[in-house]
Amino acid sequence: MCPGENQEPKVVSKEDMVGIDLSSTVHTNDAVSDVKAAPAVNGVKKDATHAGSVTTTTPYGPHPADFLSNVRNFKIIESTLREGEQFANAFFNLETKMKIARALDDFGVEYIELTSPAASPESRADCEAICKMGLKRSKILTHIRCHMDDARIAVETGVDGVDVVIGTSSFLREFSHGKDMAYIEKTALEVINFVKSKGIEVRFSSEDSFRSDLVDLLHLYRAVDKIGVNRVGVADTVGCANPRQVYELVRTLRGVVSCDIETHFHNDTGCAIANAYTALEAGATHIDTSVLGIGERNGITPLGGLVARMYTADPEGVKAKYNLSMLREIENLVAENVEIQVPFNNYVTGWCAFTHKAGIHAKAILNNPSTYEILNPADFGMTRYVSIGHRLTGWNAVKSRVEQLKLEMTDDQVKDATNKIKELADVKTQTMEDVDVILRVYHRAAQAGVLGLGESVKLDQLLEAHREGNNGIDAIADVPATKRQRTEA
Amino acid sequence: MCPGENQEPKVVSKEDMVGIDLSSTVHTNDAVSDVKAAPAVNGVKKDATHAGSVTTTTPYGPHPADFLSNVRNFKIIESTLREGEQFANAFFNLETKMKIARALDDFGVEYIELTSPAASPESRADCEAICKMGLKRSKILTHIRCHMDDARIAVETGVDGVDVVIGTSSFLREFSHGKDMAYIEKTALEVINFVKSKGIEVRFSSEDSFRSDLVDLLHLYRAVDKIGVNRVGVADTVGCANPRQVYELVRTLRGVVSCDIETHFHNDTGCAIANAYTALEAGATHIDTSVLGIGERNGITPLGGLVARMYTADPEGVKAKYNLSMLREIENLVAENVEIQVPFNNYVTGWCAFTHKAGIHAKAILNNPSTYEILNPADFGMTRYVSIGHRLTGWNAVKSRVEQLKLEMTDDQVKDATNKIKELADVKTQTMEDVDVILRVYHRAAQAGVLGLGESVKLDQLLEAHREGNNGIDAIADVPATKRQRTEA
Repeated sequence: MCPGENQEPKVVSKEDMVGIDLSSTVHTNDAVSDVKAAPAVNGVKKDATHAGSVTTTTPYGPHPADFLSNVRNFKIIESTLREGEQFANAFFNLETKMKIARALDDFGVEYIELTSPAASPESRADCEAICKMGLKRSKILTHIRCHMDDARIAVETGVDGVDVVIGTSSFLREFSHGKDMAYIEKTALEVINFVKSKGIEVRFSSEDSFRSDLVDLLHLYRAVDKIGVNRVGVADTVGCANPRQVYELVRTLRGVVSCDIETHFHNDTGCAIANAYTALEAGATHIDTSVLGIGERNGITPLGGLVARMYTADPEGVKAKYNLSMLREIENLVAENVEIQVPFNNYVTGWCAFTHKAGIHAKAILNNPSTYEILNPADFGMTRYVSIGHRLTGWNAVKSRVEQLKLEMTDDQVKDATNKIKELADVKTQTMEDVDVILRVYHRAAQAGVLGLGESVKLDQLLEAHREGNNGIDAIADVPATKRQRTEA
Repeated sequence: MCPGENQEPKVVSKEDMVGIDLSSTVHTNDAVSDVKAAPAVNGVKKDATHAGSVTTTTPYGPHPADFLSNVRNFKIIESTLREGEQFANAFFNLETKMKIARALDDFGVEYIELTSPAASPESRADCEAICKMGLKRSKILTHIRCHMDDARIAVETGVDGVDVVIGTSSFLREFSHGKDMAYIEKTALEVINFVKSKGIEVRFSSEDSFRSDLVDLLHLYRAVDKIGVNRVGVADTVGCANPRQVYELVRTLRGVVSCDIETHFHNDTGCAIANAYTALEAGATHIDTSVLGIGERNGITPLGGLVARMYTADPEGVKAKYNLSMLREIENLVAENVEIQVPFNNYVTGWCAFTHKAGIHAKAILNNPSTYEILNPADFGMTRYVSIGHRLTGWNAVKSRVEQLKLEMTDDQVKDATNKIKELADVKTQTMEDVDVILRVYHRAAQAGVLGLGESVKLDQLLEAHREGNNGIDAIADVPATKRQRTEA
């Protein structure tokens, strides 16, 4: 079971399970003793999803008694074209903005947020053009300062809603706009009423909420809720908040306002995804994201990371809402435009996200991928990779490769060959090709009766002869004809 | 104030403050109305630390009444040489391992964890060699399977302690080692007693703790605690746990065992840092990290990210314990060895971590860096950068640059020049050099009386002439003599 409040009653029984296609990947969050299937490894077998083949339940879902939780009922406000435009490297022309908006719409985000049309003439023209694109699913928002001048421009662009923001921390009141809370409230009410009068959505958010006075903040939020704001926003502008603080603030706010609650988390201290999840548990309804998390400084909650987190709690719900296999394409599009590399350890799409290396991991993954994977790579259009050419490798992983190569070897022979792989890998990591050569040479030699168990020195000689393309050994080593000819020539 | 339980009584009064060196960076977590200082921007001014100049308190610190919290009393078990060796790209020879161990010791981590000496002959020899290095501060641990064979090898290497691990989730019991809880307990007690008999530290950890049966787990931990294990470990092996689950499990465990509690968090769903922090709040004592977070799949809690998170709660404590300015050097060392790039958005050392772009951010940062920075870059040997050559720029940031260039311009002139920067940046982001050219040309022309406010077209002509190196304009434009000669030649 999973400790904590998010446990769910077990609803899967053996009767609920249908036959498993042995070529598919079994990913289940319950330990199912009679389900064993060979998973796809290193792309040799097709990595099919298990949708429809096993009914799964997850202990990471919201607890039924957790009545505040919106973990299964959240909306994404995708802010790559607003917060992301504040990323140091970002310069999006209209063509790029439209490409990104189209991709986000295809992915299925509920909202796309754009830079304030008051920021520059180009920003305004771009905002108007994107509103005219006729996106299928995503509503268009723009994000403005809490000021009537900005509001007047914003409502004329054709957006579905306006996100209004003002700093409320003593830091920002002191060193940024210099206004007091009475002025902030007066202006907020004026701007909200004006936007509402145009028949479009309006959100009011404090900036730097976690360093603002709690009483001031709740007072202000109650006032804007009273006049019918659609959402209030909580923003961790400097990335200082931790999950328990987020839970407390959002939970308190949930008792004060009846409107939706949006949250925005910067990632300076690594809590942006966890804070977003915790905010939903506490009753928040909307999460701000950007592709790859780009934004001011090191950015905000990344779209891919949020989706991975939410999938863990509710895989079927997330798969139904979003086109997960588009994630990599959207990330590539943005990464190219802002000239960054997708980080090696990026959620879901990082090149090592589904790579398994240690021997005990590899062995278990081969029995059941759920042992060491909480995300099913196939659901994201990805494949897993089990690394076997290193000194931490185990014979179970090597045996799987032997089977893929359709070589006939006993377990003892596989163990023997594994020892050689580990021995060679102690000097340098072996590529998959290196490993395959060891296995093929071992196999041929054993079949031909020239190699017995534990004859390490003889195996070295056979491998050496193979590498030198020695004709005498060609009868044993499985060198392709083309390569043999090249060696002979 | 900061909502949540981590608020601390305000202890700073004006009397506590000493004079501020105007060339230093003021970073304070309280809004201090009478402290204003010009911060270092774009490397023009030296970015000194504020240590000693302002006594700070932080609302992000642990709440005094939070008696379980170890946020101010934690230890790092640095596992780059164990978990990190399981990273897909990792291959560390002894020389590299020793370099990394030396750097981590200099940084000040309390423990360094090494791959099991039972993994390969090389692993064993390396472990023995690192134990003989005579590190100043860090104790050496090795991480073994819960098996007497592995334990016997481990205790002979000279390590200060042995970290014992076994999978306890139904997944791992079913699909990995296949043992039941009774067998696990029996073996655990045997191994622990054996390691203790050698007079060295011993930790016992379950693997995949968050998918293990809570009652089984607590039963097992109580049994090992009873015989005097030094630490028990909680591991989120698949990266499924969220902060509230972590708090619940660790808090429950804190009531069951009297030994230390170590935690290990994978980052598949982006909660590794937040989970580590929350575990400390719940009474955990030790956190596992690796440099850049490298490990199985997308890795674990990164050293730099954890340090950033802990600094937010207790800057002085973290600065006293660790040599923070070494972070980048250690990350570079590891990144080069495993052939990865430090991610653009890496905590603290990512190239955009301290870059400010939006106009309102830039303005506030120039007044007080704490407005938009929770980490003081100087404490990590880093500098901030305020980006001004883009269409979201504001005149306050441009004014700061004007002052750096020692140009005499009125506020109206700066605003006028800012409009030109924004206009040009609407087509393409302007480099700092581009911005400087605009400012210098504007300044010279205004000084010479040939350019008035709002004469945008004339300014364009002057800039065009400057770009063409037109001699007639050289009297106005601030072209260096060397460049002028080159143009003439």
